[in-house]
Amino acid sequence: MTDKELFKLALKAKDKAYAPFSKFAVGAALLSEDGEVFLGVNVENSSYGATICAERSAFVQAVSKGVRAFSKIAVATSQGEAWPCGICRQFMKEFCDDSFEIISGSDEEHLVTHTLLELLPLGFKLDDECNQIKGKV
Amino acid sequence: MTDKELFKLALKAKDKAYAPFSKFAVGAALLSEDGEVFLGVNVENSSYGATICAERSAFVQAVSKGVRAFSKIAVATSQGEAWPCGICRQFMKEFCDDSFEIISGSDEEHLVTHTLLELLPLGFKLDDECNQIKGKV
Amino acid sequence: MTDKELFKLALKAKDKAYAPFSKFAVGAALLSEDGEVFLGVNVENSSYGATICAERSAFVQAVSKGVRAFSKIAVATSQGEAWPCGICRQFMKEFCDDSFEIISGSDEEHLVTHTLLELLPLGFKLDDECNQIKGKV
Amino acid sequence: MTDKELFKLALKAKDKAYAPFSKFAVGAALLSEDGEVFLGVNVENSSYGATICAERSAFVQAVSKGVRAFSKIAVATSQGEAWPCGICRQFMKEFCDDSFEIISGSDEEHLVTHTLLELLPLGFKLDDECNQIKGKV
Repeated sequence: MTDKELFKLALKAKDKAYAPFSKFAVGAALLSEDGEVFLGVNVENSSYGATICAERSAFVQAVSKGVRAFSKIAVATSQGEAWPCGICRQFMKEFCDDSFEIISGSDEEHLVTHTLLELLPLGFKLDDECNQIKGKV
Repeated sequence: MTDKELFKLALKAKDKAYAPFSKFAVGAALLSEDGEVFLGVNVENSSYGATICAERSAFVQAVSKGVRAFSKIAVATSQGEAWPCGICRQFMKEFCDDSFEIISGSDEEHLVTHTLLELLPLGFKLDDECNQIKGKV
Repeated sequence: MTDKELFKLALKAKDKAYAPFSKFAVGAALLSEDGEVFLGVNVENSSYGATICAERSAFVQAVSKGVRAFSKIAVATSQGEAWPCGICRQFMKEFCDDSFEIISGSDEEHLVTHTLLELLPLGFKLDDECNQIKGKV
Repeated sequence: MTDKELFKLALKAKDKAYAPFSKFAVGAALLSEDGEVFLGVNVENSSYGATICAERSAFVQAVSKGVRAFSKIAVATSQGEAWPCGICRQFMKEFCDDSFEIISGSDEEHLVTHTLLELLPLGFKLDDECNQIKGKV
């Protein structure tokens, strides 16, 4: 699947965003290594701290279906190009390699791609087994 | 769909939980008013604060598909009966009425049901339009 | 310290809230068992999910100073009486007994008190030692 | 205040961490532009998603006291050098410039410094007034 196709899916997903407080609608389309696409939107909450972004909505949907290996994600917003917040970058770090690609843009003709390593250098990750830090870059 | 059927779906979903840190696996099965079921699992993160519970994984999946009206949710864990954490109760409050039902139990033969009002009395909710508090119980 | 005195401290603290997005300012005054008061405000974030409420701001401040035993908290908002969100109730559950008191009101002459048990029945809590569920009510 | 002095304060603060689940204790020492120091520790929760890291504990304490301008933060952990998680980087982005400094190290003799821009390139931030995205790098 091309970046453009994936972005168009994110753009369409965005219309289902629940963003009554910020009015900032976001859609995300996550591509697994097996070629499956998971769509997510931002879901806000009256207690802002409970808000879940579009990227994480897509990830938990995939994980809930047993999918844990991903190749890229496209993010589309009601206000053009925007890059994942720190929480979502942290979430990606748990499942994705440094080369995982994040795609955004003002529209489908102007897409930009960054790797997870570019957006979250020196990312924090615990080792599953013993809760010790691994992987200092 | 009966409570028992919904709980069995939650029990099965649980096997996909990503819980390397707590080893506490949780599955949730959320029933929409239209009769559709959304399955979620807990997805932990090295930065514990980024963890998303099974209940919220199910909710964001539904919302991402345009579904916002729900009737009940079943929660199954690797350690028997447990009730949603405060974050998830807060998340439910955004979309569900006081009569929304939460089902848990040690196994499918011993289910208990509580309403959202019972688990989150005097819940906090902002009005969408003007961000003013509404709905003091 | 009386409830009224504690509430007045929360009311004053509220003026320092960082709430540019919701415009909903909240102050909290937390009383430890030793009689020390910790003041907190809500701190919002552009990524709404990173927002921390006034109650939790007060708690982490206390814990950072080695204080973990509390008797009551007062909550004052720019829009009158309001009760802690589910996230904050969950946070309290970690450190407080069922009898922990939460105080709010439209003004200092009209205060209402609820216990944590009243606001978070059947609260979720892991056992520190073995991560097993304890304390079903 | 030197980086070394600030780090030593973080190291000492760490002993008050509430980390019964991960056993990963973290202390943070945040220096305001006015030269005031705020100490924070990580505060974990049975519902992992409610956990607040040491860095954010320090920030909300400062904001609760009306302080919103910062120059640097030191982070010390029970397992040596570690860099803030994505959530904390996002939190810093709200109040700090790109040149804000983050200091960590295995011990006080081996400190490393990175700027916020280095750790959170293309960070996400809403404009306070109109909730529109600003500041694409």
